[in-house]
Amino acid sequence: FATHVAAPADISLEEYHERSEEFLDSLLLKLEELAEQREDVDVEYSAGVLTLAFPPNGTYVLNKQPPNKQIWLSSPISGPKRYDWVIQGESMHEKEGCGVGEWIYLRDGSTLSDLLKKELGVYITATDPSAA
Amino acid sequence: FATHVAAPADISLEEYHERSEEFLDSLLLKLEELAEQREDVDVEYSAGVLTLAFPPNGTYVLNKQPPNKQIWLSSPISGPKRYDWVIQGESMHEKEGCGVGEWIYLRDGSTLSDLLKKELGVYITATDPSAA
Repeated sequence: FATHVAAPADISLEEYHERSEEFLDSLLLKLEELAEQREDVDVEYSAGVLTLAFPPNGTYVLNKQPPNKQIWLSSPISGPKRYDWVIQGESMHEKEGCGVGEWIYLRDGSTLSDLLKKELGVYITATDPSAA
Repeated sequence: FATHVAAPADISLEEYHERSEEFLDSLLLKLEELAEQREDVDVEYSAGVLTLAFPPNGTYVLNKQPPNKQIWLSSPISGPKRYDWVIQGESMHEKEGCGVGEWIYLRDGSTLSDLLKKELGVYITATDPSAA
């Protein structure tokens, strides 16, 4: 398992903030759409912390952790996880900036997007840094 | 280790909400005092989620998790932990309602109060349910 996962991308704190906010902003947008359809769902985003009341699962929290350049997730279903920004596919392309970046749980190589899709049914696509 | 820790107290959802809000309200009060003294510290409490920006450590999140009757903590220093409400000392007193309740990390018997004291320097005392 985890054969393709290497290390977090070596990004600046500035890029970390860009990437993490981009992700959390996209997620917020999707969750706000969801909250409009479901009265029991409630979402808030403030100071780098996204809180989601999602009955009957419970409360999800995603927060930026700038000292580690990570996004931390607390899921009432699957527990806590820490995600690093990883650029995948760079070695294949052999050109910097051509890989696709994703928030990855390094312990098993799973993506934050996949977890959110599975547990919440929301789709956040991976970001292509070369398109930014 | 953990010789005195048994199981979570068998409390109603209503009591869970009382105990957890009591704890988080006390903590919020202490942290607001701290935030007045330290410009870089910022605290917010909304919908059962307490967020604390505490440089240089990072961001702390404490949130209620009603389906489990727990308080979940995410610490940038020590990671994630789940706390259950445990009444201690009840067997000694041999009378219901005379023990002292605390939020306990069952894996090692440590209290949420102790962690907050150690990492943040704030003191939240244990609640005596018989005095409530």
